[in-house]
Amino acid sequence: MLIRTMQDVEARDMTPAGAQKTTIRVVFGPQENAPTFALRQVDIQGGGSTPHHKHPYEHEVVVLAGNMKVVGPEGEKPAQAGDAVLIPPDEIHQFKNASETEPAKLLCLIPVEHQV
Amino acid sequence: MLIRTMQDVEARDMTPAGAQKTTIRVVFGPQENAPTFALRQVDIQGGGSTPHHKHPYEHEVVVLAGNMKVVGPEGEKPAQAGDAVLIPPDEIHQFKNASETEPAKLLCLIPVEHQV
Repeated sequence: MLIRTMQDVEARDMTPAGAQKTTIRVVFGPQENAPTFALRQVDIQGGGSTPHHKHPYEHEVVVLAGNMKVVGPEGEKPAQAGDAVLIPPDEIHQFKNASETEPAKLLCLIPVEHQV
Repeated sequence: MLIRTMQDVEARDMTPAGAQKTTIRVVFGPQENAPTFALRQVDIQGGGSTPHHKHPYEHEVVVLAGNMKVVGPEGEKPAQAGDAVLIPPDEIHQFKNASETEPAKLLCLIPVEHQV
């Protein structure tokens, strides 16, 4: 078994990917020999957001802390701690922190072959 | 997008699978057209545990609440809220609630083709 304290994993700034005030920690990915899916922790500061984009693979997201606005083709929907979000492949999406001041924390899972 | 409040998903008793004092909620699985991996919430009451078993696919687990003992080939290791656990395919494992009184809550992910 491999046990990792997620907060101790190195955080990468997601600004180059089009996010704002957001970091990502790859907890389980290719380096950990994750067989099927990559497990990442995403921290979004107040006023921050992930990129507004789409890609040919899904996201499964769990909100661990904070209040989110999830942007999709049908507009924005709220999600909060304890909610899970499935973004199907090729659907445009964005995760916005609904607060300007409080941080939000997500788990975001993708198929491991798309983890760089 | 599909947003589900995990606590609102129907809980199944895991006793028939060899667990004790444990329920599972399939948040995203075949019924939700999850493409790659199934996302489940597992609640373990005080003194409870998942089966001591192995199978030819991995687990990726995130401890959401409580204190766990994770049993593996090398013995027991502690894991607590904020920790993630990778169980490789074919490795024997068990998740025990380390408390006799306090509940524990996990996310447990598996490849979707193994979700029944």
